[in-house]
This record gives sequence, structure tokens and C-alpha cells, in this order.
Amino acid sequence: MVTSTNPESEYMDCNDETQVLSIERVFEAEKVPGWREQLTFRAFAVSMLLGVMFSVIVMKLNLTTGIIPSLNVSAGLLGFFFVRMWTKLLERFGALKQPFTRQENTVIQTCVVACCGIAFSGGFGSYLFAMSETIAQQSTEANDAQNIKDPKLGWMIGFLFVVSFLGLFSLVPLRKIMIIDYKLIYPSGTATAHLINSFHTPQGAKLAKKQVKTLGNFFVFSILWGFFQWFYTGGDECGFKAFPTLGLRAFQSKFFFDFSATYVGVGMICPYLVNVSVLLGGILSWGIMWPLIERKKGDWFPADLPSTSLHGLQGYRVFIAISLILGDGLYNFFKVLGRTISAFSTQIQAKRSSSAPLSTETTNPLTNPGVSFDDQRRIELFLKDQIPNSVAFGAYVAIAIVSIITLPHIFHQLKWYHVLLTYIVAPVLAFCNAYGCGLTDWSLAATYGKLAIFSIGAWAGAAHGGVLAGLAACGVMMSIVSTASDLTQDFKTGYMTLASPRSMFISQVIGTSMGCIIAPTIFWLFFKAFKDIGVPGSDYPSPNALVYRNMAILGVEGVSSLPKHCLTLCCIFFAAAVLVNLVRDLVGKKRARFIPLPMAMAIPFYLGSYFAIDMCIGSLILFVWERIDKAKANAFGPAVASGLICGDGLWTLPQSVLALAQVRPPICMKFLSRSANVKVDEFLSKLS
Amino acid sequence: MVTSTNPESEYMDCNDETQVLSIERVFEAEKVPGWREQLTFRAFAVSMLLGVMFSVIVMKLNLTTGIIPSLNVSAGLLGFFFVRMWTKLLERFGALKQPFTRQENTVIQTCVVACCGIAFSGGFGSYLFAMSETIAQQSTEANDAQNIKDPKLGWMIGFLFVVSFLGLFSLVPLRKIMIIDYKLIYPSGTATAHLINSFHTPQGAKLAKKQVKTLGNFFVFSILWGFFQWFYTGGDECGFKAFPTLGLRAFQSKFFFDFSATYVGVGMICPYLVNVSVLLGGILSWGIMWPLIERKKGDWFPADLPSTSLHGLQGYRVFIAISLILGDGLYNFFKVLGRTISAFSTQIQAKRSSSAPLSTETTNPLTNPGVSFDDQRRIELFLKDQIPNSVAFGAYVAIAIVSIITLPHIFHQLKWYHVLLTYIVAPVLAFCNAYGCGLTDWSLAATYGKLAIFSIGAWAGAAHGGVLAGLAACGVMMSIVSTASDLTQDFKTGYMTLASPRSMFISQVIGTSMGCIIAPTIFWLFFKAFKDIGVPGSDYPSPNALVYRNMAILGVEGVSSLPKHCLTLCCIFFAAAVLVNLVRDLVGKKRARFIPLPMAMAIPFYLGSYFAIDMCIGSLILFVWERIDKAKANAFGPAVASGLICGDGLWTLPQSVLALAQVRPPICMKFLSRSANVKVDEFLSKLS
Repeated sequence: MVTSTNPESEYMDCNDETQVLSIERVFEAEKVPGWREQLTFRAFAVSMLLGVMFSVIVMKLNLTTGIIPSLNVSAGLLGFFFVRMWTKLLERFGALKQPFTRQENTVIQTCVVACCGIAFSGGFGSYLFAMSETIAQQSTEANDAQNIKDPKLGWMIGFLFVVSFLGLFSLVPLRKIMIIDYKLIYPSGTATAHLINSFHTPQGAKLAKKQVKTLGNFFVFSILWGFFQWFYTGGDECGFKAFPTLGLRAFQSKFFFDFSATYVGVGMICPYLVNVSVLLGGILSWGIMWPLIERKKGDWFPADLPSTSLHGLQGYRVFIAISLILGDGLYNFFKVLGRTISAFSTQIQAKRSSSAPLSTETTNPLTNPGVSFDDQRRIELFLKDQIPNSVAFGAYVAIAIVSIITLPHIFHQLKWYHVLLTYIVAPVLAFCNAYGCGLTDWSLAATYGKLAIFSIGAWAGAAHGGVLAGLAACGVMMSIVSTASDLTQDFKTGYMTLASPRSMFISQVIGTSMGCIIAPTIFWLFFKAFKDIGVPGSDYPSPNALVYRNMAILGVEGVSSLPKHCLTLCCIFFAAAVLVNLVRDLVGKKRARFIPLPMAMAIPFYLGSYFAIDMCIGSLILFVWERIDKAKANAFGPAVASGLICGDGLWTLPQSVLALAQVRPPICMKFLSRSANVKVDEFLSKLS
Repeated sequence: MVTSTNPESEYMDCNDETQVLSIERVFEAEKVPGWREQLTFRAFAVSMLLGVMFSVIVMKLNLTTGIIPSLNVSAGLLGFFFVRMWTKLLERFGALKQPFTRQENTVIQTCVVACCGIAFSGGFGSYLFAMSETIAQQSTEANDAQNIKDPKLGWMIGFLFVVSFLGLFSLVPLRKIMIIDYKLIYPSGTATAHLINSFHTPQGAKLAKKQVKTLGNFFVFSILWGFFQWFYTGGDECGFKAFPTLGLRAFQSKFFFDFSATYVGVGMICPYLVNVSVLLGGILSWGIMWPLIERKKGDWFPADLPSTSLHGLQGYRVFIAISLILGDGLYNFFKVLGRTISAFSTQIQAKRSSSAPLSTETTNPLTNPGVSFDDQRRIELFLKDQIPNSVAFGAYVAIAIVSIITLPHIFHQLKWYHVLLTYIVAPVLAFCNAYGCGLTDWSLAATYGKLAIFSIGAWAGAAHGGVLAGLAACGVMMSIVSTASDLTQDFKTGYMTLASPRSMFISQVIGTSMGCIIAPTIFWLFFKAFKDIGVPGSDYPSPNALVYRNMAILGVEGVSSLPKHCLTLCCIFFAAAVLVNLVRDLVGKKRARFIPLPMAMAIPFYLGSYFAIDMCIGSLILFVWERIDKAKANAFGPAVASGLICGDGLWTLPQSVLALAQVRPPICMKFLSRSANVKVDEFLSKLS
């Protein structure tokens, strides 16, 4: 049993990482290097190497299934591994000048994530490839020359360079609010930070060593579990991800435990309120609303539509989810904006009377006596190296102007005012996404991209190449929103590893630049090497590209193409989201704990509740553990969670290598109803 | 963390139940009632009730799949539950005269097991029903009137009464050797004893309470796990019992973890040597020998045989396993016999010089200073109430004579010398079975029964109704062997709960008498109620009956019908078993720990290695646990194991009720190779 004599051992905050032993006490003796020293040549060399590797993996996944897991953890881990090898080698020859610090490790992780993030947000498996002739030919509508643009290396690199940096600048001024004031969790970012901290823990810290060991054990368990699961996924709807844990009918409504170590870990890191909100959202949508709407089949929407059609049930799912997210996101955005402006004006007034420095900070968190030593130290360093707001605003405006001029030259169908509007709205949505991602670890960049497809596509109109305009606008929006949440996630990691925000930001800029060249080049290689890319049934069917194109075709028909009552429902849910937030703010902190978060509720609307069940199981494990032994649960909970997330994350790497090497799993674990099984058994006995 | 100040806390013996805290210290204040007081009316009333209930379940399982799990635990638990209700009720009215003790609980458990044991050993799903016309018509050979005997209530009850009591008397004289000298484990018996002890633990014993809680937790977990598994077994080869955990090829060779909580628990109770021996046996047989013999297909045995034919590979499996078991069993039997005779003669010589009482005891275990308090107390009470050997021998001979006269009247094909031979050989085999069961928890009664089918069947010859003679001999043999191991198992439970061997024995006799009437009556009801019993494809196909009849038909053809080289291999393995035992005895206790046990190795030869893997996983869990926290593992290991075994055991009750109520599991979890899955997916898409 672990008992701590640390006076802060009783410190707890459901919005914090609930660490009993102070991590920063362990690191207290170590000097934090200046931000310039955190940016080393070796860091960027390793980042380049890993960036290429991860980009290949992401591209492959883009073009095969379209499902991309978070690679933060693998990046942090492999970054550590490579630089540690490098430094050990140099040390042996006595040539090591600068020790390897956790800040440098964070810089590498950030750079790699930024680089391979472009391989996702560049839309090579979605909007960008959806413009090509290969995909257009698979649709009956809008496959004229006006709505087609085949991929070319030149314009792709140019396009990425003008859109990818805006996301970085858009949220930089809000980082303090997100990380320090809101104390957002960013489960992946937190897990990565725990991992990096654990690697660099100085010798002699007993509990930390135990934590590292726990993390290591669960890390190995999680990898092995991933590997074990892999064997049983030899086909569609096979394996543990298709396990109808709560019965077949519940499975059809996406209520099942999918055995994902990642989301059980996420559930252990997220506060109970988030997990419960997600589950409530799942029950409300897939348990109640969708079945009710389904009954209106033939009345509210045509009965003969395929289940993925946005004219049917899927339309309700996507648009109601978007309304909830927008309602919550906009409420919080305006709340923050209001507070910032009022603080700003107060300070200007104060400046008139005294000579206090101009700042957007509303309160000084360091003067708060309830703040732990860890937080004190982290806040101090997080606020040390500022990125001037004037630089952020200036750069945003400058790049936006370049972009507004350039983009209509790349896509003739996209007009300058479309781009301008996108750039005005984008920061708001970027905030929404970064905020939601901070709560739940889900980046909804693709959802915001879809919003752009619909709005800009409808605006341009079918006759004026609206399909292509919509897809291009989707790219602009997705790049901004996705980069913004990645950056904020990394700021959280940096905050917990005492990396300077300035070095993090520079690392992001360098990583993004790398990605803008690496990602299109790799796609270009795939496109040239495999002639049947995008052809259904081939090795690289790129399923999302066709989906995106079809959405764009739908979009040009406007709001009128939405199914019956969908717009009304959207408005109701938007209003409800605003209202719930208002109530949460009015009833005070204590009672707000029992009011669900609309943002968290919205995510299962679209995806289903399986990950909500994973997360609630994570919560349950932690809850039971806390009941049995609170001190131990607080000390080792985050380590267990991080181990689970990191192990599952790293397993994607060998999994991708296996997929690239065309090694397919040998067994399919299939779930059949008893009656279907009788037929299958008959069929199989005939076969043999 | 638990620390014990008990001076015996460091006591450990790999052949004991490795309990850190002394159980008997906890019970020290409680008076052990005399053997007469242990036999109460209420105990037998409850036993009768439970006996009927379990007999129905066993009969149902007999006639549906033929797989019967151990019901010891459920009997102990439900016995406690019912009597406790009874006493609580009487207590409320102030009418309780005699408190409910753990000894009484053990008596009930023993009586119920004896009663429903007859439902199994009576062969209603195997040899006895195999004599009927329904089954005979399904075979092309030997379906003449001479080889048919249809079930009738009269002769069935008579037959059971003359054969079922012999098993009880055959091993009574050896109980001290099995339980005290050999310290055999009897995992089910030990688990039942832990359960019964835990129920009756006096208040105030802190660790005991914790152990009970642990047992309870794992008990509930195990039931829930069984229930969860049930949902996925909607068909043959479905569910976790068909999970190819080590790959499809390993699964075909029966190497897989079958998620059985029972055998994981058994593995935690059995010493490492037993588990490793079982695994080694599995690797030797299914990993090496059977694949090699399979290559000789077409040379050693015809290639076109069905896989279950005893003329083919299955013949090698069954007969080599029997040789190993016989080699080990006979070695140990003669070793014990030799020792007993030498001790006997020594004592007779001693008696001539002094007036020491005549006894078969070789050493007085109580004088051994290494014996713990628990064992001292248990040995003391186990040796207190003796069952005179003269009574045992006398009864055995008397019943045997009655039986030799009666049986040829029931089965004309069975001659008096057949029965006589069986009764001479049976005690040896009964010892072998009780010994093997003590090591591994497997009763191999059915295997010994098959041996009788072959030997007596071949002796009688096809022309003289050898098929029926073989089946009848099988019944005689199975009854003795099965009852003997059940009784010894119960003696172990009684030993650990301080129940008197005399009351246990009387309870067994009463239970057996009940069973001899209850079991055939229930079968008769089934037989009359459902007209299609024994018809393939019906609700009660009784698969084992046909298997037994076919074996009997094979048997009458004699040893010459065995596949090529099978007899040679059998001789080699018989000699090897004797040799290994000899080496084990010669090298001394320390080195013997590393030499596997032939008896344990033989079991997977026939059944496959899946349960060996379960048991090794149990070992592994205990091993890791001991590495992490030895004191805790020693204190709580047996509780966890018992919880797992008991929960899984009790789950069979609702499972049987569900089966009786025709509630079938809704889902089939199926495992297909990737290529088969592609075909099945095509087939399914055509269906919908």
C-alpha cells in the first residue's frame, strides 16, 4: 500500500489529472531548458524520419478504410526511443553535449503530429481525392468537367501551404483559457504527457518508478490485447469490435462494448460527468430518437433510401449532432469572448490610472491558494514564453489575404467571398472543436468540413461547379479546425511537461511545413504506383472519397434537400444546447456537476454509443478502485489509463505494417443469430 | 495488506491447500458434534429434495449432450441455503434444538452427490440405454433380439441396487492412505470444503471474513461470466468453448484456452507439477504423437474411417491413455499394497511381543513435528470414528455374491464368471480412478467402463450376445469406479470440515439408496413422456448411447480389431508409466518435483489439451500473484479458486433450467478461417 507524506496528496479536482504524488517535485532538481534549447537539430531530424513513417501509415489507412486513430502516443514514444539511442551512442563516444530532456521529447512529438496531421486533414482519402475523375465517374450526377479536378503534385502542395497554417494562428491567443482556466482534459495529450514524464523521471523517486512500472505493465498488456484481437478480424464485421456484448438488437443500435483499450483508458482519465453525458447522449439518440424517427419511414423520408443516405435517417443523425455541437461551442465561444472583452476594457481603464501591462489575462491563477505545486510550476512556465497576440492576429490576417487571392486561382469554382466567409467563421468552429476535443478526445474536424461542403456548395450552386467549390471549402475548413485542436492538444502535453509554448509553436510550424510537402508526395507516389486507387473492390477503395463527393452533390441542392422536420429538430437541439449551458452557469458549480454537457452528448448521436460504453466501463473501474483503495486509485489510475491508451496506440504501428505487407488476420470471429447460424452451418456442411 | 501474527503463517506444502491462516484455529471454540448428531432428519429431507432436483438435471444432460459437470459445489451451497432457511425459521419460533454445523452441511453434500451420482453412473445416457431397441435399430450389426434389452423400471432398480454399493465398500480401507498419507488434492472436494467452512466461520475472524468476501466476489463473477458465455452458444461449435485462442490449427489439435472458470480455479488449487504434467501430456500426444500417427493413415489404419472410429486414430488415443492410467494406477496400487502388507505383518509380529491394537496404519502422522495445527486437528478427527475393515471386506464379499447370483438373471448374456472377474479387478481400477481424480479432478469412470466393454464383450463373443454382456459389464465397472472416486472426494471434504468418516459413509449409503430409486424413476418418466428419446435430431438424441453401443460392437471383435502397432504402443506406454513412477520413488522427494506424473499426463491423451491450458493459466495467475505478494496469494488464492469453481458449478443449475424450459441462447459466436468467412459472407448477402 502506498501512503504519501506529501501535503498535496489530498488535492483533487475532477477536472485535473488527479495525480497524488506531485510530478514536478520529482523533477524539481532538473533545470528546465530555455525555449531555444528545446529546439535541437536532432529533434527535427528524428521528427522528419517519424513524420515520413507515420504519413505513409495514415495515407494507407486513408485509402483503405478511412479510419485514422490518434498517433500522438506512438510519436512521443518512438521520438523518445530514437533520440535516446542517439544520445546513448554519442555518450559512449563522449560526444554528447546536450542531455535529452522531456521538453525536447515533447517538441518531437508535436512536430511529428503536426506533420502527419496533414496526411489526414489534407483530405487525400476524402475531399481532395473526391474531386478526381475516378470518383466522379462512380456518381451519376455532376460528373462534368466543371466539377472535376484531378490530383497534381503542384497544386496540392500549394493548396496545403496556403490553408494549413491558419489553424495554428487562430487559437494561439486562447491557449491560456483552454489549458489553465478551463482545465480541459485532452485525454490523449494528458496520456502522452504522462508517458513522456515517466520516461524522464529522475532516478530515486520511488512512487514515480512504481507508476512507470504500472504504466509499462498496462502498456504491454494493451499491445498484447491489440495483437490478440487482430487475429480474429479476418473480414468485415469480424472480431471484438463486432462483439454484441449487450445482445444483437442492442448491437444494431450500436450499443455494445467494443473492447477498445483506448477508450477504457480515456474513460478513466475523463471526469465522470463527461462519460455519463456521452452515455446519455447515446441513449437519447440511438435508444430513443432514431428508432422513433425510423418509424416515420415513408412519411418523413422515403422508405427505399439506403441507410447511409443523408436524405434519410442518417441526415437527422448528422445534422442534429452538428446543431448540438454548434450550440454548445458557440455558447462557450461567446462566453469567453464576452469575458475577454470585459477584462480587456477593465484593464485598459486600469492602465489609464496606473501603468499595469496590457494583457488578456483575466485573473492571475498563481495567486489562487488552492493550486497545487504541480500546477503552480506548470502555469509559471506556460505563461513565461508568450507568443504575442499581435503576431498571431497579424499572421492570421496576412495568410488569409494570401489565401483569398490564391485559392480562387487553384479552384475556379471557389470565389474569393466564399473563402473570406470561411476565414471569418473558421476560428469560431476551431474553438468549438478544440473545446470538444479537450473534453472527450474526439476531434470532429470532418464534421465541420461537412458543414462547409453544405453551406458553400449550396451557395455556389450546382450550375456553377458547386460540388467542387463545396469540397474545396471543406478542405479549407478541415485544415483549420483539425490543426487547431491538434495544437491545443499539444499545448496540454507541453503544459504538463513544462515545454515552452513558444518552442511548441515553432515546432508545430516546422512540422506543418514538412507535412505540406511530405503528405502530397506520398499520396502522389500511391496514386502513380497503384493504378486502381479509388476503384471499389480494389486494394485501395478509398471509401470516404465517394461519400464526400455524394455529400457535396446533396449539398448543392440546399436545405430543402434535408428530410422532413430535420431543420426544426436541429433548431430545437441548438436552442437546447444553449439553454443547458446557461442553466449550468446559473446553478453554480456544485449543482452543475449533475447537468450533462451538450458537446459530449452530441458525439454518439452520429457515431453510436459503443465508445460511450467503453468510457463508462473505464469510469466504473476507477469508481470501484476508488471505493476499495482511494489513495492507490488516485496514484495509479492515470498510469493505468495512459498505459492502456499508449499500448493500443502503439499497436496501430505494427498493425499498419502488417496491413502494408498484406498479412491478413487468419480468423474471423463472427456473431450470428441462432437462426442464421443454422443456415450457415448447413451451407458450410455442403461446402466440405 | 494482510499481515498475520499467526505462528503458522509461513507453513507451506505444495501438496496441501496452502492456507496461511489456520482455519481450525478459527473454529477452535466450536464443539465438533459426534457422528450420530451429524446425521439429522432435516439433513436427509433436504438431501432428498436436492437429490431429485439434481437427478433431473443430470438426466436431462445425459439425454441431450452427455456432458455432466461436477455438482458437488452446488450441492454443498444449496444444502447450506435450505437448512439455514429451515433453522432460521425454527429459531424465530424458538423451536431450534440443534444448531446447523458444517459437519451436517457436509453430510448433506455427500448424500446429494451420492444420490445424483447414480443418475450418471446408471448409464441412462450411455450403456444402459444403449441396450434398447431404439438405439440398436440405428446400427447395422448386432441388432438381433439376443443383443437387445429394453428399459423397464423393475430390472433397472434391481440392477442398480446390486452394483452401486460395491464402490462404497471397495475403497473404505484405503481412505487414510489417500487422504492423509498421499495428501491427494481432490480440487472439487477441497473447494467444497472451503465453501462449507466459509459459510460456518464464527463471527469475529477478520481474515476469514475477508476470505469469504473474496470467495463471494469471485463466485458472483464466475456465475456472471458463465451467464455471459451462455448468450454466445446458440449452436454447435459456438461460443467461448470454441474460441481458437491459439489459432485455428492449434484448435483442431485441441490446444486452446476454453475460458472455463472451473479449470482455471482447479489449476490454482492443483500443485504446479500436476498442471505441468497435464500440459506435457497434451503436447506429447496432440502435439507430437497423433499428428505422426495421422501421417500413417492408409498404412497403419484405413484412410476412409470417420474420425471417431476406434479402428483409426481414436483407437490409439483411447487405448494408449488407458495404458498409461493403468500403468500408473497399478504401480501405486501395488506399492500401497506392499507397504500395507509389510506394515500389517510388522504389527502382527509386534502384537506377539506386546498388546498393541491391530491397525493398518503404517505411521502415526500426529507425531510428525512438521504437521500444522489444521492438519493435526483434521487427522485426529478423521481417525476417530473408524469403519472396521472387517465390515468393509465382509460387505464387499456379501454384496458381490448376491450380485454374481442376481446379475446373470437380469442379463442372460452375462455369465457368473464375467461378474466374478469384474469384482476381482474392480477394486484395483477403483483405486486408480480415485487416485487420478485426487490429482486432477477428472473421474475417468467412463474410461474404465469402456475397458470392461472391450474385455468382457470380447470374452463373451459376438455369437453369445457379447454386445449386451459388454454393456452390462460396463455398468458394473462404472458404478464401482465412479462411486469409489466420489466417496473419496467426499472424504476429503469431510476431512477438511472435521466431519466424521463414519457419518459420511452412512450418508453415502443412504444417498446411494435414494439414487437407486430416484434415478431410474426419473429416466422412466422421461422415457414415457417423450416418445422420441434416442432418435437423432430429436430434442433428446442421447448421443452417448449410440457411441457405447458401437464400442460394444467393436469390442466383440477383440484385440485383433485394434489398429496396427496400437498394442505395441500400449505396452510401451504401460511400461513407461511404471518406470517413471519407479524413478520418482528412487530419486527422492526433492528431485521428484521435476518428474511429471504419468496419470496426469494420460488425461489429455484422450480429451485434448484445452483444460490443461486452463489449468496452466490458473497456475500462472497464482505464480505471478505469489511473486507480487506471497502472503496475500497464500491467504486468498484458495478462496479465489473456490469462488471460480463454485460459481461456474452453480451456473449449471440455471443453465439446465433454461435448457429444460427450451430457452436457447440467441447468438452464435463462430470462428471461421478468412477464406471460409468470404464464402459465408457471400452466402449471407444472398440470403438477405
